[in-house]
Amino acid sequence: MPTSTHCLPSLLLSAQTNSPDTPVEPLYRQIYTRLRLAITQQVLKPGDRIPAARALAQEMGIARGTVEAAYGLLQAEGYVQTRGPAGTIVSLNLQLPARSRGETPTVSTVPAVSMLAEHAAHKPGMASNGSTLPFQMGLPALDSFPRKIWARLAAQVIRATGQEDMLYPPVEGLHSLRQEIATYLQVSRGVTCQPEQVFITAGYRETLHLFCTALLKTQDQVWTEDPGYPATAHVLTHAGMRAVAVAVDDEGLRVAQGIALAPTARAAIVTPAHQSPMCVALSLQRRLDLLEWAIRQQAWIIEDDYDGEYRYQSRPLPALKSLDDAQRVLYAGTFSKVLFPGMRLAYLVVPPSQVPTFQTAARKVHSGAPLLTQKIVHQFMTQGHFARHLQRMRKLYGERRTHTANGLSKVLGNYLEIAPQPGGMHLILRLRKGLSDRAIAACMRVHGLAANALSERTIGTSAAPALLLGFTNIDSQATAERLAQMILRILQETSHAEQICSTQCT
Amino acid sequence: MPTSTHCLPSLLLSAQTNSPDTPVEPLYRQIYTRLRLAITQQVLKPGDRIPAARALAQEMGIARGTVEAAYGLLQAEGYVQTRGPAGTIVSLNLQLPARSRGETPTVSTVPAVSMLAEHAAHKPGMASNGSTLPFQMGLPALDSFPRKIWARLAAQVIRATGQEDMLYPPVEGLHSLRQEIATYLQVSRGVTCQPEQVFITAGYRETLHLFCTALLKTQDQVWTEDPGYPATAHVLTHAGMRAVAVAVDDEGLRVAQGIALAPTARAAIVTPAHQSPMCVALSLQRRLDLLEWAIRQQAWIIEDDYDGEYRYQSRPLPALKSLDDAQRVLYAGTFSKVLFPGMRLAYLVVPPSQVPTFQTAARKVHSGAPLLTQKIVHQFMTQGHFARHLQRMRKLYGERRTHTANGLSKVLGNYLEIAPQPGGMHLILRLRKGLSDRAIAACMRVHGLAANALSERTIGTSAAPALLLGFTNIDSQATAERLAQMILRILQETSHAEQICSTQCT
Repeated sequence: MPTSTHCLPSLLLSAQTNSPDTPVEPLYRQIYTRLRLAITQQVLKPGDRIPAARALAQEMGIARGTVEAAYGLLQAEGYVQTRGPAGTIVSLNLQLPARSRGETPTVSTVPAVSMLAEHAAHKPGMASNGSTLPFQMGLPALDSFPRKIWARLAAQVIRATGQEDMLYPPVEGLHSLRQEIATYLQVSRGVTCQPEQVFITAGYRETLHLFCTALLKTQDQVWTEDPGYPATAHVLTHAGMRAVAVAVDDEGLRVAQGIALAPTARAAIVTPAHQSPMCVALSLQRRLDLLEWAIRQQAWIIEDDYDGEYRYQSRPLPALKSLDDAQRVLYAGTFSKVLFPGMRLAYLVVPPSQVPTFQTAARKVHSGAPLLTQKIVHQFMTQGHFARHLQRMRKLYGERRTHTANGLSKVLGNYLEIAPQPGGMHLILRLRKGLSDRAIAACMRVHGLAANALSERTIGTSAAPALLLGFTNIDSQATAERLAQMILRILQETSHAEQICSTQCT
Repeated sequence: MPTSTHCLPSLLLSAQTNSPDTPVEPLYRQIYTRLRLAITQQVLKPGDRIPAARALAQEMGIARGTVEAAYGLLQAEGYVQTRGPAGTIVSLNLQLPARSRGETPTVSTVPAVSMLAEHAAHKPGMASNGSTLPFQMGLPALDSFPRKIWARLAAQVIRATGQEDMLYPPVEGLHSLRQEIATYLQVSRGVTCQPEQVFITAGYRETLHLFCTALLKTQDQVWTEDPGYPATAHVLTHAGMRAVAVAVDDEGLRVAQGIALAPTARAAIVTPAHQSPMCVALSLQRRLDLLEWAIRQQAWIIEDDYDGEYRYQSRPLPALKSLDDAQRVLYAGTFSKVLFPGMRLAYLVVPPSQVPTFQTAARKVHSGAPLLTQKIVHQFMTQGHFARHLQRMRKLYGERRTHTANGLSKVLGNYLEIAPQPGGMHLILRLRKGLSDRAIAACMRVHGLAANALSERTIGTSAAPALLLGFTNIDSQATAERLAQMILRILQETSHAEQICSTQCT
């Protein structure tokens, strides 16, 4: 039964009168926070209608887009849902996190980085092979994973192991897991698909390999982002494709350049949410241009949405796939960033018409993912832990990003100025042209710090030198400051410090 | 508490009175379906006795074999069990799916075969993709796996999960598991290697893919066995290689033919212990010829030792790799046959000189196996369960092979004579030339029995037609006899029975 919501504008307007010394949050964020609070405290209950964005904006005297941004965020997180002509309501199937029961600690007190640095010190070989040195990119916050819940679910799954769990797993993946993924994608990423369209893989490389096997043939051209994720071009080349590096600018992939370089390419592989590694979002115009090209050429787009959930300054952008009426987009997701990489589970959503082709391809190349891990993840999702974990991590990463940026700025403030980008899992520290980001990164690695040089991820374009630093495992500003002291010494040792005159961030 | 089942015949007889326009199911199938329904709906409860086949057949006025065929199917699927003089009862440890309680069916311990048979009925692709119909090839005895021990170890591993277990696993595999495998190979298969030579993969396909990536280039020729395991040629072709089918005779691969057909091939893939599917051992002379050719050509030999442990009439043959002083042999093993396939773990032992090459290749193509399954297997091996399990299975399979051969012979004795081969996990039933093993196998599959036709695994040679029947999940001679009754009826139905004049086995 919808209840009246006429008191909402005043409730929301009060949000602007913050205490004078705290910085005022952006307005959409205040609206979002207040509404979320009203929902979590059950002032607004499931089924309650919230005012139309247009009406609320008028009443508050603000831009409609501001309200829509707040609503978008609430919707992406599952707090509200649109009901067509009925407008937007508080989600009917909303299950609020059981935080009050103290189930899982939000932030562990373990100093994550120091422990891992010790670990790495004993395993020197790990650095080039995905270790957890401080600033390691692409790793989730390992100290904040709900391991107890995970262990409990895993134990349940193992106790219930039957003979059917010992068989060769279906090459497409466990059906119940595919179902959960389809539901999650609909709610969180605006992607509408059937479970049959979801193919489980053992990781991004296997996802790409499956795609190449199903839809490409040897020597096909494929656009890749430049700078980009190095593994993409490696896997393509290994599979016999020709990777065509297409430059990335402030709006993401330069589609026009792609068309100029390889108009008849058979596919494009993009990271629309936060370009890897530049963290820019693919603009709406570019999204439309890319889709138009794909439709015209009957080419395929792989949307690699590896960290699409992690946007801190506005709502997570809906997936490119959500615009894809013509079914040219394949959506690639992974559990490596949102849960943890050791489980080796990822997935690819393919167009309905291509399901049989992918079934054949999967039979050709896949070994299938172990049923055990698939079942644990399924339980984790079904029981609502997945959504809660995502929500907690979005908040935690927002904090860690700020702490890390502040800590680095405080110590290296004379040399660097760091503006955090809207999303992603790493910061970009730009260096003055002429400096070697590779040399500095190499030197940092020698000192036990993970650092990636932007130039190592660049092919054709001559990007300004920059360092890429993961912040997800930096647990506090104090840790960031200590690490920044190390960087400072490294810069001084390598005589680079005095040369660094300006920094900026995307 | 066993209850009386005297109403059963009438219950079953009613099965025959189908509506006139639906095609009547074979009688044994009707009996089977009705009984299964009675069990799943708990009309018959665990421990309830079901009538003796002879008595039921008399009461229904049908052949005893018909009833036995139905019972055989129920027993193979785990719904009923024989209790010696006590007759046949509904299985005591039967746990029916908890669907009625609205739980997810995934965590239940459903009788494997029936569920899968249903599943397969809806997914025609399944039967060829590893389901558990009776006579399924290549599956271990799922009913005899020490699941309790496994669950206990798994729970321990999960409780001990640390942050380092959540990272990307090493692409070569967990070092402690590689160590255990190296030790096992030395003791059991006469293969001397260091842990660094062992590369963990997600299965045989990934093993082959890794090999192709590391040591071959596009269009390289590779000898494969004919008849052979179909996946081998598929993976090679998919990886861009040219598979050269080389005939197999009583001594295994005809090395001289290989040399005649493709003297400069870069590799040969063989199953020396029990050739797949002919079960012959590669003779010592052929082993030496093959090694000599490989040394001369600097070619590679992949020894696929998928079931080398299972030899019943003498001790397991040492691996070909144990003769390999020149380091031309790569040894491929898997846990799918000796533990269970659902875990997706296999391995490849490479020559010491090729370790760096394989490390590079693994980084290119592998996603890495989940640490969880690797750690569980490691514990299973370290604590001695692996060796004990192998020993128990060697004994059990020896018994099941004998029981299955005897049961089939007893019923089909007028048509077939089956001599069990010295090793492996399946029997070969040879048919007279001119008969279509494919047609018979297809007909068996329609009736819910797994059967593989030898001709489906043959490329160039015209092998005498034969059926390949897995025996590892046939739990007694009685079951084998009941299933043989079904085969007999199928042979009669398909008008093949009278044509079958002789059978023999390798």
